[in-house]
Amino acid sequence: MVAPIPQALESLLSPEQILSSAEDLIVYGYDGTAGLKQRPLAVVFPESAEDVSKVLRLAAERDIPVTTRGSGTGLSGGSIPSENGIVLCLQRMNKILEFDTANLTILVEPGVVTETINQAVSKEGLLYPPDPGSMKISTIGGNVANNSGGLRGLKYGVTRDYVMGMQAVLPNGETIWLGNKCVKDVAGYNLKDLFIGSEGTLGVITQILLKLVPRPVARRTMLALFDSMEDAAAAVSKIIAAKIIPCTLEFVDRFTLQCVEDFAQAGLPTDCEAVLLIETDGHPAQVEEEAEQIQNILAQSNARETKTAKNEEEANQLATARRSAFAALARIRPTTILEDVTVPRDKLAEMIRFVQKTAEKHDLKIASFGHFGDGNLHPTILADERDADEMKRVHQALEDLFEKTLELGGTITGEHGVGLAKKAHLHDQYQDYSYTLLKQIKKTLDPQNLLNPGKTFDV
Amino acid sequence: MVAPIPQALESLLSPEQILSSAEDLIVYGYDGTAGLKQRPLAVVFPESAEDVSKVLRLAAERDIPVTTRGSGTGLSGGSIPSENGIVLCLQRMNKILEFDTANLTILVEPGVVTETINQAVSKEGLLYPPDPGSMKISTIGGNVANNSGGLRGLKYGVTRDYVMGMQAVLPNGETIWLGNKCVKDVAGYNLKDLFIGSEGTLGVITQILLKLVPRPVARRTMLALFDSMEDAAAAVSKIIAAKIIPCTLEFVDRFTLQCVEDFAQAGLPTDCEAVLLIETDGHPAQVEEEAEQIQNILAQSNARETKTAKNEEEANQLATARRSAFAALARIRPTTILEDVTVPRDKLAEMIRFVQKTAEKHDLKIASFGHFGDGNLHPTILADERDADEMKRVHQALEDLFEKTLELGGTITGEHGVGLAKKAHLHDQYQDYSYTLLKQIKKTLDPQNLLNPGKTFDV
Repeated sequence: MVAPIPQALESLLSPEQILSSAEDLIVYGYDGTAGLKQRPLAVVFPESAEDVSKVLRLAAERDIPVTTRGSGTGLSGGSIPSENGIVLCLQRMNKILEFDTANLTILVEPGVVTETINQAVSKEGLLYPPDPGSMKISTIGGNVANNSGGLRGLKYGVTRDYVMGMQAVLPNGETIWLGNKCVKDVAGYNLKDLFIGSEGTLGVITQILLKLVPRPVARRTMLALFDSMEDAAAAVSKIIAAKIIPCTLEFVDRFTLQCVEDFAQAGLPTDCEAVLLIETDGHPAQVEEEAEQIQNILAQSNARETKTAKNEEEANQLATARRSAFAALARIRPTTILEDVTVPRDKLAEMIRFVQKTAEKHDLKIASFGHFGDGNLHPTILADERDADEMKRVHQALEDLFEKTLELGGTITGEHGVGLAKKAHLHDQYQDYSYTLLKQIKKTLDPQNLLNPGKTFDV
Repeated sequence: MVAPIPQALESLLSPEQILSSAEDLIVYGYDGTAGLKQRPLAVVFPESAEDVSKVLRLAAERDIPVTTRGSGTGLSGGSIPSENGIVLCLQRMNKILEFDTANLTILVEPGVVTETINQAVSKEGLLYPPDPGSMKISTIGGNVANNSGGLRGLKYGVTRDYVMGMQAVLPNGETIWLGNKCVKDVAGYNLKDLFIGSEGTLGVITQILLKLVPRPVARRTMLALFDSMEDAAAAVSKIIAAKIIPCTLEFVDRFTLQCVEDFAQAGLPTDCEAVLLIETDGHPAQVEEEAEQIQNILAQSNARETKTAKNEEEANQLATARRSAFAALARIRPTTILEDVTVPRDKLAEMIRFVQKTAEKHDLKIASFGHFGDGNLHPTILADERDADEMKRVHQALEDLFEKTLELGGTITGEHGVGLAKKAHLHDQYQDYSYTLLKQIKKTLDPQNLLNPGKTFDV
């Protein structure tokens, strides 16, 4: 007789690496995404690639789905387990394996918390630039699997731009290494970038080699208040046209600002239509010059008021409105649906107006904030998932937003991933034969459909 | 009766899009790689993705191999046609389709010469950073298919880092679009990066959306002469340790320098062991400061002499030794084998020493020059392909170089590609199951093995 899965796992791992009691399983049944929950069969905590390989071989033998998970901060349901599947939680693989200051790289296990990496490298004057909002709790493995973005995307790019190599375990249990410490390498297809952003559907990433950059010496933070979103958008365009690439170019809309003032009392007037948070970093002289140019542009673009931080403390204060946006909004109604539709930068103002119209049309509360510099918008729908009628309107609104995003040459997801939440819309973005290619790639790398099945698209 | 291929092509394209005479076919039988030549059946010049699709459908129907080609400057034999195959030459698809200054992108056809792009965007104060040595004649399609590098790799990255999207025609004739103008996009697997660097084996790229950056305002060029390669290497390490990322950090060895002096009379002493060419760019104050720091480091690292350019003309003069290296070396013997083994930066000095030992061991002339900043070395073997014994020693030397590169954690090719020239060594670099994955990817995207068959690896 074949042993049940929890017992079979016990023959592979030590008892403290396995959870299978009902109360434990509930905790691992959801992630940061509203309204999604499923019950796994067991949760395992591998401590090495060998452990991962053993679990995957067992899963393949028994044809049991496996969902990989870090801290579970995902916003697209990518780490919701399959019903009666195995959860592979990588949080205990949390060692920094090597910090190479000569080649400006760091080799880490996937369970290392993103912020920990920055703490480790900042002592040497280095920076790991990607800064997803969840970086204080999210793990680097999750960041790589989802190609996480953040506030510094415009100037510094996203997670993908900093992954030089990785070790991964394939669904068949084979362990492979992709990439190396070479700045240039064109030998063979770029499999590494296929795994980055594959949302745990192609393999389990067990080591990550990251690229580091020198930490910029100076930084200047500015805040500008606008009576019209169009003026704010025009200011952004003029900044880029002046060949300035700020490291941060964020915005919040009026509704978000009102909620923020209610919550965090940042001392901002709640009657302005848009607030821009702008940061420039680099060499002190460059920062000085860029800040002056930006202030001129803001004034010429009808900014009602502009504030410039004199020190780190003031900078943090100015960033309060933007940084506390999600927390402030999440208090208003029981269910917070944080979207991440993204459009080319010059289409963002049009998209924000469309979000406002969509809210009116479907009688919903939708706040907008996000990354103006890279066109990455976070329309945030405040609702109550117990209200069936309202949730129906939420879904209609989302349909409208996705349609408009694609019409503007954008993407349904800029940084959160497809997961379960946006699965129904991926085909709208991949309307040509490339959608078939996505499925073919999945079938090639995971022929048994073991890893995170049913996520992103159905094979 | 089935019409022969040239006639069948005439039913799809206009006569001036097809070459099939013996003398024309000879010209398209080779590329920039020494010692490789094959005879195609026909050469076609598509003018649109539709043309490409028609040709690929015919090729699929008749099971005839297709090799895509731009200017034929490749150094790994990647555009050598299959014997009796079709050459798809994209040089006539050479339009700039859109220059979007708001989103800092440019949309081009694959036949646009790389330098033309920079000329077009520099008027607007923008820069397309990748600068392969062949940029005055190579086409952007070839650059993308091979993920070309260049002199600015350390600071600015390589071609891959600037490709935001592409149109490609698959071997089955389907036309797909991958990517968009969004700075952030995580919807679906990253197929775009799979096509970049795939050396024409997965699809034919027919449009390319490139990212641009503001053109740096200031630049400073320096040259340093060293009596020892170790001292030069130590200087490079100290520059990086000082958190300076120069845009150019090149070197030539003594043998190269001697050939250069003989050829271009740059006025440099031929008894020094290493010459470093260093350029820093960016904001004027930063450039000024970095140049001063670099000069101090060079002096502390026993540089025999340091020169700093006062203007553009002097900068070009200083760059002469490095830029004319290949031309100077190519004069010495009939056959020039330009290699591009690449190692982590801190292993480059060791690799250069190994190249010198290898030259002695096999009684060969091997010059070394290349990109010190990114560990990308160009050992250049000067030989005569008519001398069978010498060529045997050349191949033995190459075996030694590849083995050492991999031992040092490097790659067999940093920027030239695998093609035919390094096909026999790819498996040495992909020793685990990832080699099987490469083949599986090829079989999935090109099941008939129509595109550039026999290149990179055998399926």
